[in-house]
Amino acid sequence: MNPSQPERVARDILVVGSVALDSVRTPFGMAEEALGGSASYFSFSAGHYAPVRLVAVVGEDFPAVHREAFERRSVDLSGLETAPGRTFRWRGEYHIELGHAHTLETQLNVFSDFHPRLADVHRRCAFVFLANIDPDLQLEVLAQTRGARLAVSDTMNYWIARKADRVIEVLRRVDVALLNEEEARALSGETQLVRAAQRLIDLGARAVIVKKGEHGALYRSAEELFVTPAYPVSGLQDPTGAGDSFAGGFLGWLARSGRTDPQALRQAMACGSAMASLAIEAFSPARLMDAGTAEITERVRAIHRMTSFELESLFD
Amino acid sequence: MNPSQPERVARDILVVGSVALDSVRTPFGMAEEALGGSASYFSFSAGHYAPVRLVAVVGEDFPAVHREAFERRSVDLSGLETAPGRTFRWRGEYHIELGHAHTLETQLNVFSDFHPRLADVHRRCAFVFLANIDPDLQLEVLAQTRGARLAVSDTMNYWIARKADRVIEVLRRVDVALLNEEEARALSGETQLVRAAQRLIDLGARAVIVKKGEHGALYRSAEELFVTPAYPVSGLQDPTGAGDSFAGGFLGWLARSGRTDPQALRQAMACGSAMASLAIEAFSPARLMDAGTAEITERVRAIHRMTSFELESLFD
Repeated sequence: MNPSQPERVARDILVVGSVALDSVRTPFGMAEEALGGSASYFSFSAGHYAPVRLVAVVGEDFPAVHREAFERRSVDLSGLETAPGRTFRWRGEYHIELGHAHTLETQLNVFSDFHPRLADVHRRCAFVFLANIDPDLQLEVLAQTRGARLAVSDTMNYWIARKADRVIEVLRRVDVALLNEEEARALSGETQLVRAAQRLIDLGARAVIVKKGEHGALYRSAEELFVTPAYPVSGLQDPTGAGDSFAGGFLGWLARSGRTDPQALRQAMACGSAMASLAIEAFSPARLMDAGTAEITERVRAIHRMTSFELESLFD
Repeated sequence: MNPSQPERVARDILVVGSVALDSVRTPFGMAEEALGGSASYFSFSAGHYAPVRLVAVVGEDFPAVHREAFERRSVDLSGLETAPGRTFRWRGEYHIELGHAHTLETQLNVFSDFHPRLADVHRRCAFVFLANIDPDLQLEVLAQTRGARLAVSDTMNYWIARKADRVIEVLRRVDVALLNEEEARALSGETQLVRAAQRLIDLGARAVIVKKGEHGALYRSAEELFVTPAYPVSGLQDPTGAGDSFAGGFLGWLARSGRTDPQALRQAMACGSAMASLAIEAFSPARLMDAGTAEITERVRAIHRMTSFELESLFD
């Protein structure tokens, strides 16, 4: 701990990412200009566990109703800038495979000039989530949050294709780097995911989580290898935001429990999986907004039931 | 139990499938006319746990050295017919993705006229594995093994494309049906694997295991949903036989433990995963032949460590 750093607020989580208006079509329906963005999904997920402070930018056209939704969930919006112009927009569709989105249109709008300036209340958060924004912005945030107890990053193929060296620089500076399967393969050059994760550790990451969609997620550090399955949803509607919601459950539980030991990390993976399953049951973060603690608890228990077994002596 | 049925030999496992000579090329090497076939991989895997009796056919060209390898592992070969002609041959290659094999050539040879006739010693086995042979042959075997304690089937896309109704008929008559991802999707018409498995239950299967390669496997019945991860191999050589080796560990543990309750099924999944990981570390079933019980035990323990976590109250 650097004594010049401000005192941390133990349970507060800072998220820096996008707040967007998404237009999404899936085989199960569609949404037009619905609330989206990585920081939105993350906030509605993590907000179940701990106080969340959001740093992002929207345009003057951002609907008040969305702002109120965040406030109903007690997400701190003091870091949500309103800039002249239009809010970030994303248009995409998912086909039958639902593995990943096909982006039809991205309008960065106000997001193109975004440079997060953190107030003291943000710098003091003990937990930091850098959603999948430009790795140079992620590094700017990290420079302003030195001494955070746990910093977690996400990324996207867009940045790996354009700024792989900066993405790797972020990986080296955070405690846990989240990537999906495709990103882990692209960044590591390895096909098998356990090897891909190991390669990223070799490149200097402290720990990585590879998000595998319906196959769950795997956590790897130099010492630990742990997997969590996906919670089996019966009514998949829209996979958008699953990864950010996973991150929200993961960081949310660590902040809530105040622990970052291996056992807490394992529990956090299950919480992440539970939150991702809620996110994909509706368009927009609607299910994350209305889910209750009993439902979340039941999903974490189900994940535990899906994986636990008693060790027995096999050969005696 | 039908009183006219012969008394079962509690721990014996019958496998009916192929014994082949495989020529395989992967990014990591190649093998020419090496011992292969579903029944071979299964036997060398299950043989670590319980007595295995193999029913298959080979040609007059089948090398004595392979026969001796089975005998060294105490696999009962009294049901291994030698027919005039050449042994079944398969030639395939795996590309970088290693998801599935690209078949270059299949020579059924003596296998094309194979109709398994089971001796009394085979009919009395309590556990039965029907490897991925023609579903009509699988049904012939099932008709001769009625009253077995547990019958498990495998299949392949080749049969799903040609005889989907017969494959489904087999699913209805066995206790557990094994399929890989692609087969589960093809047979069920569902993309998401948990739903695919559920659809197969709806079609009359009692329980299905979907093998997911590096993502492990999932077990689904009307009452149970359970997943096991893949054991992380460091030196993948050749994925051939992974599924049959999984089946060998799965049935092997059930036969060894004498149990088929949900807890035993979960342990059996981990044993399956451990055996599959050994199979793919070498060409041919070489690693299955030389692995010891300590190594197998350590892999099952590692799988347990990869998935277990303590449940805690999340919100209180």
